[in-house]
Amino acid sequence: MFTTRTLHVLKACVRNFTGLKQLKQHSLVSLQCKRLQSTQSLKMAYSVIERGSPYTADYRVYICHQNEPISPLHDIPLYADANKKIFNMVVEIPRWTNAKMEITMKEILNPIKQDVKKGKPRFVSNCFPHHGYIWNYGALPQTWENPEHLDDGTGAKGDNDPIDVVEIGYRIAKRGEILQVKILGTIALIDEGETDWKLIAIDVNDPIADQVNDVADVEKHFPGLLKATIEWFKIYKIPDGKAENQFAFNGEAKPAAFALNVVEDVHKFWKQLVNKEVDAKGISCVNTTIEGNSFKIATNEAKDIMNKTPPLGSPQTIEPIVDKWHFVHLK
Amino acid sequence: MFTTRTLHVLKACVRNFTGLKQLKQHSLVSLQCKRLQSTQSLKMAYSVIERGSPYTADYRVYICHQNEPISPLHDIPLYADANKKIFNMVVEIPRWTNAKMEITMKEILNPIKQDVKKGKPRFVSNCFPHHGYIWNYGALPQTWENPEHLDDGTGAKGDNDPIDVVEIGYRIAKRGEILQVKILGTIALIDEGETDWKLIAIDVNDPIADQVNDVADVEKHFPGLLKATIEWFKIYKIPDGKAENQFAFNGEAKPAAFALNVVEDVHKFWKQLVNKEVDAKGISCVNTTIEGNSFKIATNEAKDIMNKTPPLGSPQTIEPIVDKWHFVHLK
Repeated sequence: MFTTRTLHVLKACVRNFTGLKQLKQHSLVSLQCKRLQSTQSLKMAYSVIERGSPYTADYRVYICHQNEPISPLHDIPLYADANKKIFNMVVEIPRWTNAKMEITMKEILNPIKQDVKKGKPRFVSNCFPHHGYIWNYGALPQTWENPEHLDDGTGAKGDNDPIDVVEIGYRIAKRGEILQVKILGTIALIDEGETDWKLIAIDVNDPIADQVNDVADVEKHFPGLLKATIEWFKIYKIPDGKAENQFAFNGEAKPAAFALNVVEDVHKFWKQLVNKEVDAKGISCVNTTIEGNSFKIATNEAKDIMNKTPPLGSPQTIEPIVDKWHFVHLK
Repeated sequence: MFTTRTLHVLKACVRNFTGLKQLKQHSLVSLQCKRLQSTQSLKMAYSVIERGSPYTADYRVYICHQNEPISPLHDIPLYADANKKIFNMVVEIPRWTNAKMEITMKEILNPIKQDVKKGKPRFVSNCFPHHGYIWNYGALPQTWENPEHLDDGTGAKGDNDPIDVVEIGYRIAKRGEILQVKILGTIALIDEGETDWKLIAIDVNDPIADQVNDVADVEKHFPGLLKATIEWFKIYKIPDGKAENQFAFNGEAKPAAFALNVVEDVHKFWKQLVNKEVDAKGISCVNTTIEGNSFKIATNEAKDIMNKTPPLGSPQTIEPIVDKWHFVHLK
């Protein structure tokens, strides 16, 4: 009946509720598990199809829903459960890896591909003491940081991408995995002059997810992680010769309520984008599920598009220099 | 003529010497490359044969010299080049991995296997901000920390293993790889009451190896790494319910000259061990190369021993809990 994962989480729930009375505990656990089963089944519906050779310019990860290719940008609902404020998150980069994978804005179906820099697939540098990305990194579907919109708070314009998320649960997620997450807060990176929100979130299936609801809880349960996160974003491009990144709000993390408002804003911008209320400037809005939308295509068409790309090949060897530790220190 | 690796190092040499005059640069690079070719060929002679299924109790890594199984503890010379104080190092645990692999003392040919704790293959916990082991970790061949010997400096007895090394070069080494290293210094961990020297070394083929000769150079070129190393050893068993580890010498790293004396000592202890001058207490001294030694066996016998172990199987899946980050902070 239950998957191993569900059982594991069930055990964790039981551990978390040991302070409560037997009966109350039982009903709470039942409730909790219903919710988990429901997020679990939401998750099961998504899968990936890899095309091309990993770590080459040809590589693509197509996201599928019930085995049919979809656009992770347009066809995955922002909310996994709107009432409970549970969001879907598209994982682009698993924790402790370096390959800079991202949803492509301009390609039909917006597959995940590796960013290219100076003609070569891009790997972010390891800045001591960190190894690769220090969380599962990805984006919220159905969001868009409008580059024409000047943010009141940050004083900078959007970066033309879906909103970024760092997911801090214990498990290393998979590239292209769709997680169900709670939003805990946000930091406002100013990356080369553009507002680049980094939402902080946790997988709702993490054993301690119920105890982590806001930025203060992050510091309580993950002491030092917020500071490391700010430091990571400040320095991560320095080994590539770029300047230290800046943060709005003096590098303070804003609370969950603030972050939820930011998400609402970027969701509205996305709606304007797919409804042709703003100039898409090359962003592909092709989708397979938005009823009445002028960019909607049939599932068979989507399959044909995916099948025209090169089939999955062997991964290109990653050069050892990617593993180098750079000893960058802020003054 | 050159391997890709040699060419890569050659390029790095050229980069490092750009401040020098053309002619001097050329001759230095030639010299450097002769040395690299020579350590490179030493290295090429060693290889590994894996047996059993990785991450199970059956798994073994046998070290071979010219494709014949040998004992990494007894048959690999301590010195790769005695005049230049270049040592061989057996890599047990590659950087950023968790599986606690180690040379077995009691099994014939001393293959590398995974330590077992409470009946299960052991993985060390990730203590934030670290990911697994933060250097290539291994041991020097032909050394033994005699458990009957009370160290004057540390006031504690040896831990009955070959001497441990952390190798800090940029490249992630492979399990069972034999590196040629320079000793830069040492720290003296007191692990559960036993003296457990941790030598600090660098692969002589690392592009900056020539600039790193002592502990002060480690702090200069790898700022923060020594402090992180001390912290890592202090806390790494805390998530498993053990106490904080202690260091002799107030946690100060001792310089290269001191470390070389320690290595001489533990090399002597090893000689006493294989010459039956002390009680081996179950340590296998079987070897294939020590002329006149009573434990020497023929190569064919060694092959037969290895071939009786289970053949290489598929790796056991590593449980996601191994990837959990533990937020342990020292008071």
